[in-house]
Amino acid sequence: MTSREDGRAVDQLRPVTITRHWLDHAQGSCLIEFGRTKVLCAASATEGVPRWRKGSGLGWVTAEYAMLPQATHDRSARESVKGRIGGRTHEISRLVGRSLRAAIDYTALGENTITIDCDVLQADGGTRTAAITGAYVALADAVSHLRENGLLAGEPLVESVAAVSVGIIDGTAMLDLPYVEDVRAETDMNVVMTGSGSFVEIQGTAEGAPFDRAELDTLLGLAEKGCADLTNLQQQALAS
Amino acid sequence: MTSREDGRAVDQLRPVTITRHWLDHAQGSCLIEFGRTKVLCAASATEGVPRWRKGSGLGWVTAEYAMLPQATHDRSARESVKGRIGGRTHEISRLVGRSLRAAIDYTALGENTITIDCDVLQADGGTRTAAITGAYVALADAVSHLRENGLLAGEPLVESVAAVSVGIIDGTAMLDLPYVEDVRAETDMNVVMTGSGSFVEIQGTAEGAPFDRAELDTLLGLAEKGCADLTNLQQQALAS
Amino acid sequence: MTSREDGRAVDQLRPVTITRHWLDHAQGSCLIEFGRTKVLCAASATEGVPRWRKGSGLGWVTAEYAMLPQATHDRSARESVKGRIGGRTHEISRLVGRSLRAAIDYTALGENTITIDCDVLQADGGTRTAAITGAYVALADAVSHLRENGLLAGEPLVESVAAVSVGIIDGTAMLDLPYVEDVRAETDMNVVMTGSGSFVEIQGTAEGAPFDRAELDTLLGLAEKGCADLTNLQQQALAS
Amino acid sequence: MTSREDGRAVDQLRPVTITRHWLDHAQGSCLIEFGRTKVLCAASATEGVPRWRKGSGLGWVTAEYAMLPQATHDRSARESVKGRIGGRTHEISRLVGRSLRAAIDYTALGENTITIDCDVLQADGGTRTAAITGAYVALADAVSHLRENGLLAGEPLVESVAAVSVGIIDGTAMLDLPYVEDVRAETDMNVVMTGSGSFVEIQGTAEGAPFDRAELDTLLGLAEKGCADLTNLQQQALAS
Amino acid sequence: MTSREDGRAVDQLRPVTITRHWLDHAQGSCLIEFGRTKVLCAASATEGVPRWRKGSGLGWVTAEYAMLPQATHDRSARESVKGRIGGRTHEISRLVGRSLRAAIDYTALGENTITIDCDVLQADGGTRTAAITGAYVALADAVSHLRENGLLAGEPLVESVAAVSVGIIDGTAMLDLPYVEDVRAETDMNVVMTGSGSFVEIQGTAEGAPFDRAELDTLLGLAEKGCADLTNLQQQALAS
Amino acid sequence: MTSREDGRAVDQLRPVTITRHWLDHAQGSCLIEFGRTKVLCAASATEGVPRWRKGSGLGWVTAEYAMLPQATHDRSARESVKGRIGGRTHEISRLVGRSLRAAIDYTALGENTITIDCDVLQADGGTRTAAITGAYVALADAVSHLRENGLLAGEPLVESVAAVSVGIIDGTAMLDLPYVEDVRAETDMNVVMTGSGSFVEIQGTAEGAPFDRAELDTLLGLAEKGCADLTNLQQQALAS
Repeated sequence: MTSREDGRAVDQLRPVTITRHWLDHAQGSCLIEFGRTKVLCAASATEGVPRWRKGSGLGWVTAEYAMLPQATHDRSARESVKGRIGGRTHEISRLVGRSLRAAIDYTALGENTITIDCDVLQADGGTRTAAITGAYVALADAVSHLRENGLLAGEPLVESVAAVSVGIIDGTAMLDLPYVEDVRAETDMNVVMTGSGSFVEIQGTAEGAPFDRAELDTLLGLAEKGCADLTNLQQQALAS
Repeated sequence: MTSREDGRAVDQLRPVTITRHWLDHAQGSCLIEFGRTKVLCAASATEGVPRWRKGSGLGWVTAEYAMLPQATHDRSARESVKGRIGGRTHEISRLVGRSLRAAIDYTALGENTITIDCDVLQADGGTRTAAITGAYVALADAVSHLRENGLLAGEPLVESVAAVSVGIIDGTAMLDLPYVEDVRAETDMNVVMTGSGSFVEIQGTAEGAPFDRAELDTLLGLAEKGCADLTNLQQQALAS
Repeated sequence: MTSREDGRAVDQLRPVTITRHWLDHAQGSCLIEFGRTKVLCAASATEGVPRWRKGSGLGWVTAEYAMLPQATHDRSARESVKGRIGGRTHEISRLVGRSLRAAIDYTALGENTITIDCDVLQADGGTRTAAITGAYVALADAVSHLRENGLLAGEPLVESVAAVSVGIIDGTAMLDLPYVEDVRAETDMNVVMTGSGSFVEIQGTAEGAPFDRAELDTLLGLAEKGCADLTNLQQQALAS
Repeated sequence: MTSREDGRAVDQLRPVTITRHWLDHAQGSCLIEFGRTKVLCAASATEGVPRWRKGSGLGWVTAEYAMLPQATHDRSARESVKGRIGGRTHEISRLVGRSLRAAIDYTALGENTITIDCDVLQADGGTRTAAITGAYVALADAVSHLRENGLLAGEPLVESVAAVSVGIIDGTAMLDLPYVEDVRAETDMNVVMTGSGSFVEIQGTAEGAPFDRAELDTLLGLAEKGCADLTNLQQQALAS
Repeated sequence: MTSREDGRAVDQLRPVTITRHWLDHAQGSCLIEFGRTKVLCAASATEGVPRWRKGSGLGWVTAEYAMLPQATHDRSARESVKGRIGGRTHEISRLVGRSLRAAIDYTALGENTITIDCDVLQADGGTRTAAITGAYVALADAVSHLRENGLLAGEPLVESVAAVSVGIIDGTAMLDLPYVEDVRAETDMNVVMTGSGSFVEIQGTAEGAPFDRAELDTLLGLAEKGCADLTNLQQQALAS
Repeated sequence: MTSREDGRAVDQLRPVTITRHWLDHAQGSCLIEFGRTKVLCAASATEGVPRWRKGSGLGWVTAEYAMLPQATHDRSARESVKGRIGGRTHEISRLVGRSLRAAIDYTALGENTITIDCDVLQADGGTRTAAITGAYVALADAVSHLRENGLLAGEPLVESVAAVSVGIIDGTAMLDLPYVEDVRAETDMNVVMTGSGSFVEIQGTAEGAPFDRAELDTLLGLAEKGCADLTNLQQQALAS
């Protein structure tokens, strides 16, 4: 039997904390922690939309993900210093944006733009799933800000969105992998789901050996459980 | 009932052609066509590996995907002129590389590097899946080149790899979407599989509405059929 | 006496093929081959002109030249990956643009823009001259497209344009150099001419020894012959 | 009489907190707050020095300063996305590096490199002075880490370093300006001092009106007081 | 006693020459020499202001500083070739701009922009102070040009501005350091002053040992003397 | 009859001055003026060659051309600020390098590198031909420096090189075009020749109407005369 280094059950999340209003300027923000992974999520709401969307009556939501140089075990070089954004950063920024857009009705948002920044202050696996889960909380607060200022055309938040990683390690499927498990995983999958239990995004990769339909089903089951738990934590944070 | 503009059955591929040895210099190459989508795949094999891998006895496989400006319906700007690679290009290059690496045993490859270039000459949906499917053929020829020159430590090609897109349009799951279907899809999924029927990569995105487990299962079934058909076509091309 | 590796006479072109309509989206396109050199030429015609030319009543023609990484014998790095366009690419893009503009009456073109892309799929010497020669065919088709759509103010194609390389190898002047000859040439010259036999551009470089007026005269004579042959091939392609 | 919006005396710092060990991976780190300004300071210590310093027996200390996009009142664009570092960022990174190097004896440090990152999570004036003050604490911890691992050639920490801003607003000199005061200041000065009361760096700028020697003397007096207070807070933090 | 290699007194400037109207196109220009340091200063005056200032009725002054590759003892790489501007260049450009803006009344300038370029043709210490001193002369001529063309709303030149370096070498404070002194300086300070004797900018750095108030006072006294001498030379140049 | 605005005969150069040793650090340098065109040419000689040439026993000569922002009538943006080198700059840098390399015997140069910088301080037509002509003088002085230091394997200067522009204006061929003529030229040609009267480079462009062999012959005749005159001026400068 595979036992986890931190003693968790295979279907158990790491301790998750969501600290809302961590920043003063952004219209919505939180510091989300999945174990030692810490992501600062901030959402700024501004009137108006990008040029290509003007006059459509529709809003826009976009996201940027990045990692501080000292977030990783060995310091990594700044992308601003390198003068270019790496493929991984691009890929995750796009994933976060797509995921959050699934929560939004653009017509109800009206011609407002919400920009979400997810900055990883410390990385210990699952940074993109923590980012999406925290970003939803920041997004909800930014939408509230627009609502309180009478800037909405309706109720744009049609769903909540949460995300979690799952993987297969030594043949066992597990939920919410920290770095030490992630590097050993044969298969690694990130799943984004709505609060009502539908899939928004599935990204599964055979890092080691290819996987079959049965393994895929087990992973999806774990992800459904994890996303449901995260949805509860989001609701608690937003209710407080 | 949804009927397809081009008259195909929902589980039917577009006409696929694979023209091997399309280039003279690369150790392996083919022009692959999925309907009107045309991708030039080339694999160059060189002795030696990147610095971080030297002395490991292991080989390396990497890939770059790009699109010619006139490949799309409306001309798109060159990334070389813009001075930076876009997120989509980065994302697909990484996907192609990961997928092909699933076909390779690095120990048997020895300290050789195979670089795969997938350049989209014309785009009509499914460019990344055509790229992966064609890249495998180019890779196999580049491996043969190394074998014929006595540069291999064993037999590095442990699997074949093929990829196909599936999606849900007006509630119906369909295989191998051309551009006109792709833009209308509620859910869009790219699936990479081995010739023996295991999954290498699953990337599913709810462009419109989130999808449930039953829809996911239908999509995976279509993808399995499509990848099996493509595997046959790869074998025929490599046998000719 | 110097004999050529491929058995050609000193004033003989390599086999040239021009395959029109190679692409579906561009308004004009062809794949042009000078021996093993393959260049994909595409011309897109769009209404409107760049900002600095608006309201002038004049059209605009511009060109971009590039080389796929596997076009050369040893794979070369992508300029998009390097993040900057090299001097050679810049220089040839400018040459192609200037050459094609000599074929056009801007007033008759009206405020339309034609963008020409010349992408070298395989390089074996003479890529810039093949690019110009093929680009003219794509340009002519793009102009026809504008004419058929009633977008022209007159007949903008005032001339045809073709280009060829000439050089001196072991003291002998030769026409249309493939790579093996090009690297040995003491003098290398690219000549762009109109269909009516005037010069548009002459770029002669003493790679090895400086050249005198007599050598220059011989080279120009060969170029006149080669351009006349290419003009015939262009006319045949456009007539088919 | 000018009274400050937050009720402070003209020679009084904002509430300052220094939370050590805020990160797990970096050898030294703290979150420093000057009122609402929050800067995450991290110092990583690695064996070896940059190539140009190898074999000298001397160590190296370098610093990078950056600001998260949502740190400012209105979100600012990421420098990684813009593809270049702005002048202000460059200038402050250089200032932080020079200031910290004044604390270090390179011979005693031996051929080790300490890289300091100061990332502004929230900006409300004085970010560069908070960065320097916090960076010293992170540096001291990174040096301790090297000492505990037996990697030092001596005691490299020869001094402590702290920094504070001073300015003239409506003719009155004041210590530690928040954003609302900073934008109104006629003269703005950043002063870096050692714990023993000498000057490391003085950067004074007449934003509005030029200043005379008497005003300069008053500003320097305030800065001496502020740096002494910060030195005490650093010692308390490092003693805890 | 410390004696200077070039025999100057500690409070003596190097020979300074200002050659006005060195360029034909710029509205103001001069070649300024501080000993062997040669800086070409040019000011171009154009109607209109940057977008963010339009309609304000206020003018704008901006500056760029750069160094030719062969200006330094060992040739340095071009920043255009490197594709990015270094921190030092950014820092000095900003300093020159801020310094010159202290000379200008924006309301009187009206919506005109003056762009100042300071290009170091040869560097021997003090390039930034020579740049500021020469830039003022070019600025004054560009203002005259606007005045003569009736484009001013008043008299924008409210002050003259000059700059000089001072430093401590072997414990002795000295004025206007050439390169051989600059590299040996324990403390290095650049001081920008108005013609009427107030401070615009003070940038002091302890390169070697921190400095105390007494040393600071001595340095400021030398700088006052040097700037007064430079102000005289500027007036002579502008009077000629 | 076409008369020239500055009263010159059609085969007459503008006043040319060559001021040697304009810089102190570079091993060779001159300020060359063709009328109002001013180019600062500098050649630095260093031991060693680029990595790809090491161990060959051969030297290397390379060149960079650039223009100061205020060199042109309307100020142009700095390429360092834009973050990329333009096509024209690339093209001319390559031309200058090729031209100067024609003067050099690499074996005699030995493993030394000469880097030539041509910076246009003021532009009034003919900047690239002035650059080449001045660069030869700087190169000759840099070679002398190597010779005097015993670093040469032989006599590397096998030829002198000079360049001039010619063009057709209103049907008349003219030598050495200033800006006002250059913009009106139907055909514009730059010719680089050796001191012994052979051609190194010919770049002719039909800006307006294509040109015929007779016109080409006239232009070449003018260029031969102009280059011969410039060769004399180079010899005088180097003899002084």
